[in-house]
Order: sequence, then structure tokens, then C-alpha cells
Amino acid sequence: MAAYRLLDWERPPELVEVPVPTVGPGQVLVEVAGCGLCHSDLTMVAMPGAIGEALGWEVPFTLGHEVAGRVAAVGRGIEAVAEGDAVLLAAPSCGACAHCRAGRGSACPHADAGRGYGRDGGLARYVRVDGERSLVPLGALDPRHAGPLTDAGGTSMHAVRRVRPALGPGSTAVVIGVGGLGSFAVQILRAATEARVIAVDVDPAARDRALALGAHDVVDGTVERLHRTLRTFAPEGLEGVDAVIDIVGTDATIAASLAALRRGGAFALVGAGGGGFPRPWFGGLPREATITAVERSTVDDARAVVALAAEGRVRVEVDEYPLDRVAEAYAALDAGTLVGRAVVVP
Amino acid sequence: MAAYRLLDWERPPELVEVPVPTVGPGQVLVEVAGCGLCHSDLTMVAMPGAIGEALGWEVPFTLGHEVAGRVAAVGRGIEAVAEGDAVLLAAPSCGACAHCRAGRGSACPHADAGRGYGRDGGLARYVRVDGERSLVPLGALDPRHAGPLTDAGGTSMHAVRRVRPALGPGSTAVVIGVGGLGSFAVQILRAATEARVIAVDVDPAARDRALALGAHDVVDGTVERLHRTLRTFAPEGLEGVDAVIDIVGTDATIAASLAALRRGGAFALVGAGGGGFPRPWFGGLPREATITAVERSTVDDARAVVALAAEGRVRVEVDEYPLDRVAEAYAALDAGTLVGRAVVVP
Amino acid sequence: MAAYRLLDWERPPELVEVPVPTVGPGQVLVEVAGCGLCHSDLTMVAMPGAIGEALGWEVPFTLGHEVAGRVAAVGRGIEAVAEGDAVLLAAPSCGACAHCRAGRGSACPHADAGRGYGRDGGLARYVRVDGERSLVPLGALDPRHAGPLTDAGGTSMHAVRRVRPALGPGSTAVVIGVGGLGSFAVQILRAATEARVIAVDVDPAARDRALALGAHDVVDGTVERLHRTLRTFAPEGLEGVDAVIDIVGTDATIAASLAALRRGGAFALVGAGGGGFPRPWFGGLPREATITAVERSTVDDARAVVALAAEGRVRVEVDEYPLDRVAEAYAALDAGTLVGRAVVVP
Amino acid sequence: MAAYRLLDWERPPELVEVPVPTVGPGQVLVEVAGCGLCHSDLTMVAMPGAIGEALGWEVPFTLGHEVAGRVAAVGRGIEAVAEGDAVLLAAPSCGACAHCRAGRGSACPHADAGRGYGRDGGLARYVRVDGERSLVPLGALDPRHAGPLTDAGGTSMHAVRRVRPALGPGSTAVVIGVGGLGSFAVQILRAATEARVIAVDVDPAARDRALALGAHDVVDGTVERLHRTLRTFAPEGLEGVDAVIDIVGTDATIAASLAALRRGGAFALVGAGGGGFPRPWFGGLPREATITAVERSTVDDARAVVALAAEGRVRVEVDEYPLDRVAEAYAALDAGTLVGRAVVVP
Repeated sequence: MAAYRLLDWERPPELVEVPVPTVGPGQVLVEVAGCGLCHSDLTMVAMPGAIGEALGWEVPFTLGHEVAGRVAAVGRGIEAVAEGDAVLLAAPSCGACAHCRAGRGSACPHADAGRGYGRDGGLARYVRVDGERSLVPLGALDPRHAGPLTDAGGTSMHAVRRVRPALGPGSTAVVIGVGGLGSFAVQILRAATEARVIAVDVDPAARDRALALGAHDVVDGTVERLHRTLRTFAPEGLEGVDAVIDIVGTDATIAASLAALRRGGAFALVGAGGGGFPRPWFGGLPREATITAVERSTVDDARAVVALAAEGRVRVEVDEYPLDRVAEAYAALDAGTLVGRAVVVP
Repeated sequence: MAAYRLLDWERPPELVEVPVPTVGPGQVLVEVAGCGLCHSDLTMVAMPGAIGEALGWEVPFTLGHEVAGRVAAVGRGIEAVAEGDAVLLAAPSCGACAHCRAGRGSACPHADAGRGYGRDGGLARYVRVDGERSLVPLGALDPRHAGPLTDAGGTSMHAVRRVRPALGPGSTAVVIGVGGLGSFAVQILRAATEARVIAVDVDPAARDRALALGAHDVVDGTVERLHRTLRTFAPEGLEGVDAVIDIVGTDATIAASLAALRRGGAFALVGAGGGGFPRPWFGGLPREATITAVERSTVDDARAVVALAAEGRVRVEVDEYPLDRVAEAYAALDAGTLVGRAVVVP
Repeated sequence: MAAYRLLDWERPPELVEVPVPTVGPGQVLVEVAGCGLCHSDLTMVAMPGAIGEALGWEVPFTLGHEVAGRVAAVGRGIEAVAEGDAVLLAAPSCGACAHCRAGRGSACPHADAGRGYGRDGGLARYVRVDGERSLVPLGALDPRHAGPLTDAGGTSMHAVRRVRPALGPGSTAVVIGVGGLGSFAVQILRAATEARVIAVDVDPAARDRALALGAHDVVDGTVERLHRTLRTFAPEGLEGVDAVIDIVGTDATIAASLAALRRGGAFALVGAGGGGFPRPWFGGLPREATITAVERSTVDDARAVVALAAEGRVRVEVDEYPLDRVAEAYAALDAGTLVGRAVVVP
Repeated sequence: MAAYRLLDWERPPELVEVPVPTVGPGQVLVEVAGCGLCHSDLTMVAMPGAIGEALGWEVPFTLGHEVAGRVAAVGRGIEAVAEGDAVLLAAPSCGACAHCRAGRGSACPHADAGRGYGRDGGLARYVRVDGERSLVPLGALDPRHAGPLTDAGGTSMHAVRRVRPALGPGSTAVVIGVGGLGSFAVQILRAATEARVIAVDVDPAARDRALALGAHDVVDGTVERLHRTLRTFAPEGLEGVDAVIDIVGTDATIAASLAALRRGGAFALVGAGGGGFPRPWFGGLPREATITAVERSTVDDARAVVALAAEGRVRVEVDEYPLDRVAEAYAALDAGTLVGRAVVVP
């Protein structure tokens, strides 16, 4: 079968022929219906081998970590799914380590390598899955476009859950960056919290999309003193907004987020923009605020997004590409010319 | 009566005569039994007027915000306390703003000025209290040495409560800096959590004190690569400790704290050491960790410390000074030569 | 002014003339725009004096505890509201007792008597309010129909908040009884949780109303073995529903609720139907389930409902009556012939 | 090897010879170091076959569900433990169902049958374990006496965790019944909460044991109007105690527990005494209180007790019996003449 693979460190990936994987005990073969492309894929291509190896990655591997499809074969001992089931492949975690046992699958060290990052992923006709715990049944949802629910959707759910304790009736939540993840964050905030949702983006089309997805209001990310504009959305009697999810993550967006937050508010950093907060923390960080860096999601996050999608409360916007145009799709992703999430349909 | 007052901005405080305050409706007069001295008092003396005024402070005012004493007189409408009651004066908060209504008294904007910081505090024979909500009954506890329970104790309780969700059986908590606040933090962690408690200080005497107060182990704060030593105390199967309370707050202690923390751990910054984290946050902050800057405490925090003190689970170590030696006490505080918390007994 | 008052224990209330209340320091006079009628009012009329006095009630008093109106006058010391403001009168609680300090205003013993139950309530042109902490600003909401937000709305919010930890994406919540409170419970579950909402009522009109207010599905409360029907709505893989709010409270509804619940589910009893669970608890109660009897609400619950109403996510259905037809309105309430909540407009 | 087995429904168990189990892939063979005896074992002996089969139990099976020992052999795929490791066998749960995924292992339907109840348990020299997720490493703890940590200890931990949100500094927790479970509950409340702990028992020796294990005070369970005595331990300003764990579970103890509780308190029913609350719930249950029936525990509960035991904060009192005297040990358990938990050492 054709597979889009990273053949070696710091080398452009290629579409090559590989054998269809076989299935042993405790394994599941999934026929890929669609595989979402993610910005982090672009980073992998440039990753030095030393870092990849430190993470436990092995080259060559097939890219693609936002996979949904149908079960094509199951090994002995698999009970949760059967041939033909539509499934989403959530980020794998071991289920046994101290983090997993405490419900922190996103912190599982065994998940530093996974399908599409250091192991064979979904940019191929078939992908093999070890164990059944990362398989989320899709029920009647079409697996063709469901792939982005796992990473873009799951990470957004994870971020919303981290800030949710700060959100009640009459509260305000801000999402900075309405691309692949932000589109989910806006919808999940609407479906899962009582907050008024404000979306920030520099791109007018993204702001229109945010409004169409349920944002109560939008703000142009290029305004001067962004934090002041955001503060105008503070609930009555509070000096700032209750929560910010920053999916950009530059110095500027982090500074604006923290300055816009009320005391005791919640900030979730999702964006890998390389920014920080180069100022003293005591007196500089918003007092009593809760700050978290979110990087991955749990199987339960993916299940939660699927449940919302099944009810029609979260929808996936997709730009479809065939596997032989995957390089072109990545180029569009890199150039920022996509409208929805790029999904490759093998 | 004699009172130790800041007569003007950026001017050394002086012991001067002022009239005993009178008590109107809804007010309480407290005869001070003891008033703790706090590092932040030293900062106030140097504070530019512009900042003080922005905080709503008014000069002149009497210093001292760690006050306990006995009720000397009550105005009309006061029901919770009666003449002769031993009381602790917790940090005031309005009780009515959106923060207070949500249980976030430490974020109350009306508390930016308070007794001893912008309003008359406890370095005098009497102090007047508006309303009764900040008065915590001491029961049989001696008010002479109870003053530090309110700020040093309450802030430590607040910090422990912020990190407590990360602490269960088999967990490890680290306290950096075992001075006035750290002594409380160690004791409260022992009384209120199941964690193993590790105390860090550069001073061997402080480390001995930490052990005497219940720390399971101590670490010399001057070791090279402090975070590596701290990580040796990580619970089995985890890559770092579960929580750090940093009461120093320099670049070095913040970096060591974050590097020592497990994924999903909790960090509370209490120390005003002016440090930060001058590195990119995404990938730099410990993944999934919860970071909070703690600055004040609530009335309920003070009540909680008093409850532990009443049971003998938290004790206050005090160096007693008379009011006419208050300047000397501050000098000792500034020089770091105190063993316990300095308390002025008028 | 005319006021509908309970003049003595176990005697029908009467519309009589009383003086307009005067306002002293710390008090607020509110001109009533509308006052909702509640089933509990009917009980009060029949209450023996011994019980009333044990609760601290004093006769005579004006009935009516679901009051909204406009501030007509404020006493000295009132800062949060000004003349002309539209306000909702939330259930009063003292704000100072151990329950209130811990955020449990609904458990405040000083709230056992209140406006409309033991003290003068809102079935009159004016009502006097002690203090400002129970006044919730209505902003642009019309106070004429807002009264039911405080008790019917607030108690429903309180019940939803008690069961909410059991509700996530893909979960199912059941409301039994879609009258005054149930109408709110259905809407609040939709606005504040991700649950699928199932409403149960014996009356087809009530079931239609539930669907119009957002219930995903309805069940006829007269079906045999109601718990079996409810279990058909259990999320996939679970043996029962995640939460039930029972606003009827008979032996039958309690038994059906508990039998329909999944292990670890949540049950909130709101209805004063006099029912119980006359069976052994160990092995009889659903394992690990959380059971709570809800009776009142907090000021914050009322604020939360107002916030949802201001956004149009909760609406109040009202049958309007003038004050001189209040007896007729109570008769309709007792007979169950009302469509919305009866609101008396003085 | 000898094994103490239930050979058929409603027939006294017998010590018979069975083959040593073999170990296949994913299985672990444990050499039993000690196996605790539990009251529920006595019930199993009398259980009608219809009920046993409905639970998925299969006869014959070896009794004994409080097992600790050393790993004697591991099948292919086992990584978490190695030969010679001291381990505790926690209550098994599947790890994959909707309950397990949500952290509710104690509600797992696959755990209705388990080692010692419907499957071969630990009253034998060896026991076979499927999978490794229920094996808790004991480290340096002696497995001979550790068995009771899993059920008596784990269930007590589970109960404490259910009531813990109601317990803070200055709070009061009551344990009714200081036998096998109650001894743990008292110790865990001391180690894991700030509460004052009051133990109730009808037996003076049990009360002495409670004091030795850390209870602050004890109450004779035979006093008239037990709830009134318990209320004298209410924190200042509250009308009742904050939490009760009832390990007896009769009508009398349930009534006393509920009547002794403050509004908003927490009640965990653990005892299978067959009692209930035969009164109307609305107005009868303590307002706002949280009521839970606890039946089992999770693997994490067992890990938490082991962590406390490893630190010496929880200790197990044991009466040791050899396997050939197991019938005698059960007789002593039934007669209530044991001092500690009976543990059979094969």
C-alpha cells in the first residue's frame, strides 16, 4: 500500500510503497477513512534526530495522527470492537503508569511516541493499533471526516476542561486563534459551558467562521492593546475575563491573555508559538490565576468530543485531499490558505 | 497611645502619639495583644507615593497587619463578638463584590488597602476594625502570639490549598524557604495533606527548624542543580515531585521548582523574590502543571489555621519585642537574624 | 397599600390594608413589579403555629417570596443598588454564619424565616429588604416577570449544580415533573451541561412544554415500570442514566429514580411529595450514587439564573394576575390548571 | 495444594486438595503470604445459587479476597511485576468499561465476581491473577499481614474519600463501628483529613482500640439518643457534625447518623446491617447533605492505603491463623471475639 513516510530525520517525507500490516494478538487493523493533517507534522519533518530519538521515536514511520476509519481485522483478545465498526484513533496512552492510573493520560510518558509521531500513523490505507483502549467507537458518525476530532478536537476539549472551573453563568471565555483547534474550542465552550465566548483572530475569514460556529463576539487580533479590548468583555463587577485559551502562544498573545484575565481566572496555553512571559512573576502574573500548558489530550477527551459531535453540537470543517496530493495539502496548511482542517482520504 | 506609623511616603516610620480610636456603629475596638512583623512592611517603607495612591492607600497610617488581641469595645450592630473575646484580625475583604461572593476574598479589590497597609494597623495599643467579618475567634488560644496566624499562616494555608489537589497518599510536596511563611507551610502540609514534605533552605538552622516542625526530609538550597536533588524525592513511577511551594521566588528557585515538578503537578509562587521564567512557555513549563501566584489569603484561610493551632497541629514560633523596640525588631528581620516570627507586644 | 397576608396560623390569608414600610439605615424599599406564587405558599396557610414558631416565623406576615421590582428608596450605607434599579430578591441568608462563610447559603439557619415565609413578602405594592446582599441586579431584564427566577429558578439551578458532576458529554439527565421548577430545570440542564435531557410528566401538555423548552425526549410518567423506560436512555455501556432530578418526590418517583440511575449517578430530591425509600439502604440504594435533598437556593444560584435569562437561555413562562385576583390564582395553582408560573402584578 | 473452597451453593466450605494453577500469557501466579477473612465471606456461604449465578459467580471456588503475597511466576506480556515482588491483590476491575474509564472502578460490572467471590481466591498456597492492573507493589511492606489493606483498608479509604469534601480544619468526622473496617477508617481520617475524629462502638475494647489508633474521642454506641451525644461534637456554629461513616448500617445507626449530621454534611453507608430510613425524605433527610452507599473500592484506593501503610500512618492489627484452622478463624469472626483482622497464613 502507499504510505506517506518520514524515511529519515530532517528529510522531506515521501509517498512510498509498504506492506499492509499484519495483525497479532491484542492488535487491531483499521482501514483509514480519513486522516487529518496537523501543524505539528510540519515540525516533525524538521526535527533533529537527536531530539526524535530522545523522545523514543523510530524512523522511518508513516505520518498522520488524526485518524478515523473502519476496523478491518481484529487479533485474538480484542473484544471492544468488531470488523466493520467505525472508530476514531485517540492519542495512545499506556493505561498502566502512575499518570494514566490517575486519569492523566495526556501526561503518560509512553505516549511521547505514537501513531504518526515516531510510529506508523494514518497517511496510508491501513494502520495497525496495539490494544483497544485508544479506539473510540464513532457509532453513526462518518469516519471520513472524523479524524480531526482526536487531536484538534481532543486537545481543545482538554483545554476547555482545564479552564472550566473558572466559567459559570455570566462568565466570559476568550479563544485566541480560530484555526483547526480554535474552531473546536469555540464550539466546545458553547456546548460545555455557560460562558459568553469571544474569539480573537487576525484573519477576518477566521472571525466570520468563529461567529458561524457560535462565538458571541469576535475581536480583531491586530488591534493595539488587545488586552484592553478583551477587558471590555469582563463580566460586570470583574476587572477581566474569566478564562483565556491561547492557541497562538507568542509573547504578545501570552501578555495580552494574562493582562486581560481577572484575578483568579484561568489561562490555558495551547499554541506552540514559542512565546513566554519575560517579566517577574510575583506581581506580574495575574493574582490567584491558574496557568496551565496543555499539550495533548486523553482518550476520554476524544470520547467527549465524539459525544458532542454525535449530537451535532460540534462539527468538523474539512478540506478533502486524496493521498497522492498530500504534499500539496501540507503546503496549503503551511501557507495558511486552508479554510477547514485538511483531511486526506486514502 | 503610641503607634508606629508611616508618616509620609518613602520616609522611615516613627513611633508617635495618636488618639485612641473611637468606635461607631458596626465597628469594633481591639486591644492589641501582639502584632507580627512581616517582610512586606519593609517594602512599604520604600514604596513610592504614586504606587501607594494607586492602591488606594492613605498616609499617614500605623503599620502592622498580623494582629491579635481582645475586643475592647463594640459598636451598635456587632453580634459575633463581645468585649473580652480573644480575636485574630484576618485580612479584610468586602464580602460583597463578585470575587468575595465567589469565595475569592483574596482577590477582593477592596482589600488592596487594609489594616497596616494604607490604613491604621496593629503596631499600637488599639486598632479599630470595620465590621465583624474579618474577626476570627481565638477561643482559648493566647492572642499574644497568634498574630502571625493571619498573614504568614493564612497565606501558607492558601498556598497549600492551591496545590492540594495534586497531593494524595504517597505524594511529595516541596517547600522552598523555611522562614516565617515556610514554617507554617511545612506544618500545614503535614496536618492537611498525606504528602511527604521536603523542605529546602540555604540556612542549616532553618533546615533544623523544618525537621522539628515535621518535614520528612530537608535539602540544602545551595546544592548545584537543585531540581535534580528534588527529583530524587519523586514518588515511585513519577518523573518529579507533585507540588512545590516557592516562598523565595527568584529566577533560580522558580526554575528549580518547575524542573523538579512532575507532569500535571502544582506550583504555587508565594515569594516576592522578583524572579520569573525567561524561556518559552510551550515545551518549557511542565506539561499540564497548574501554576498559581498566591498573594493574600481569605478570612476562611485564617479560620482554618486557627482551627489547626487550637488542636496543637500548628504552632507559632515567636521572638517577642516591646513596642518601643520595634525598629530594632525590623532591623533583625531585615538582617535575617530572627529565629521565629517577630511579634511586637505593646 | 393592599397586601395579601397570613393574619394568623391555619387561617386563610386575606387582602388587607397595611402602611407602606419605611426605610432605615442598611435597608432598601422595593416597589414590586411582579411576585410569583409557589406551591409552598399553599402549605404555609395550613401550617400549625407550633411549627411556624419553631422556624422563627411571626404572624401576621405578607405572603410572596418570588419577588422582583424596582428600587424605590435606599437607606444609609446601601451602595450596591440605586433608586430605579431593577432587582430580583433572592432568598435571604445571613452571610456571616459558618454555612454562609462556606458558600452554603441555602443551609443558613437565619434563612428559615424570610420574605414571604414568616416575614413580610412581595404580595403587596412595596416590600422592604434588610441589607443589599440578597438583591440581584436584573440589568435590562423586565422585573415584571422575573420573580420566579429567584425560587423556582434558583432551586432548579441549585439542583442542577448538585448533580452536575455526574454529567459530561454523552450523559443523560432526567427531570421528573415539568411544572414551575421542572421548566427551569430542563432549560438550565440544556444551558449548563452537555447532558441529553429527558423530561417525565403525567400531563401531555407539560411534556409538550418540556420539548419546547429544549428537552431531547419526554416520557409519560404514568407508564408501568417507569425506571425501565428511563433506563433505555442510559448512555452506551452504562446500566442507567447519569442523574435524576425528582421534583415530585413520591414513593413511586423516588423508587423509579433510584432504579433508573447508574452506579455512581446523582439523585437530587426537590419535590415535597412526602415519599421515601422504605427498603434497606445497603444493596438497595444505587451503589456509589450521590443522593441529596435540595430545599432552597443561594443568592449565587439566583444570580446564575439571571445571567442565563439575560442571555435568553432561560425564559420564564408566566400567567399574570392582578393583586385583587390573587386568591383565584392560588386556586388555579392548587388545581393544577396553570400553564406557566402564576405571577401577581400589583 | 490445599484450598478452602465453596464446593456448592449453601454448603459449608471445605479444605480440599486442588492443583496449583498454571500461568498463561498475561497472567501472574502469586504465592499467598497471608489472606484476610471478611464478614462478607460468611454471607457467601449462605448465598442461594440463584443470586450467585445472577452475579456471574461460578462454584466451586476458593474463598478469600484479602490477599497479599509474592509473585511466583509471570506469563508473557507481564511487565509491571517480577518474580519475588511483594504484592497486594486489589479488587479487580476491567479497566475498559465506561465506569473504569471514568475512574469508578468500584462500580465496574465485571467486578461483581472476583477472586474469592465467584472465582478462586486466596485461601490456598497459590492464587492466579489475570492481568497486572490489580497488583499493587508492597515495596518493603511485609505481605504476610498486608492482605486486609485491600478490602478492609481500600473500602475505608473509599468511604473517607467520599466524605472528605465536607471535612476541613475544625471539622468533625464520626465513625460508627470500630471493627475491621472502622479501625482503618479512624486511621485514614487522621492521616488524610484535618477532622477531629469521633469513634462510636458498643464494645469498650473497640473504643480503646479506636483511641489507640488516633481517635480524638469515643462514644458508647449504646447511649440513649446517640445523635444528641454526637451533636455535642459539632464544630462551633454548626448544628451537627460534618461527616459520618456508618460501618454498622442498622435502622438505628442510620437514623442517628442522619440526625447528627449538619446541613450539607456527608454520610457514607458502609455497613451491611440491613437498615434504612423509613421516613419521608423531603424534610427528613438532612438538608443539602450528600448520602452515598459505598460497597467496594478501586485499585487506586488500595494503592493509597498501601502508601499510608508504607509511611507507618496506617497499621494493620492481625490475628494470625494457619490454613488448617481457617474454620476456627471464621467462627471467631462470626462470634465477634477477634481483636484484630483474622489473617490466614498458608
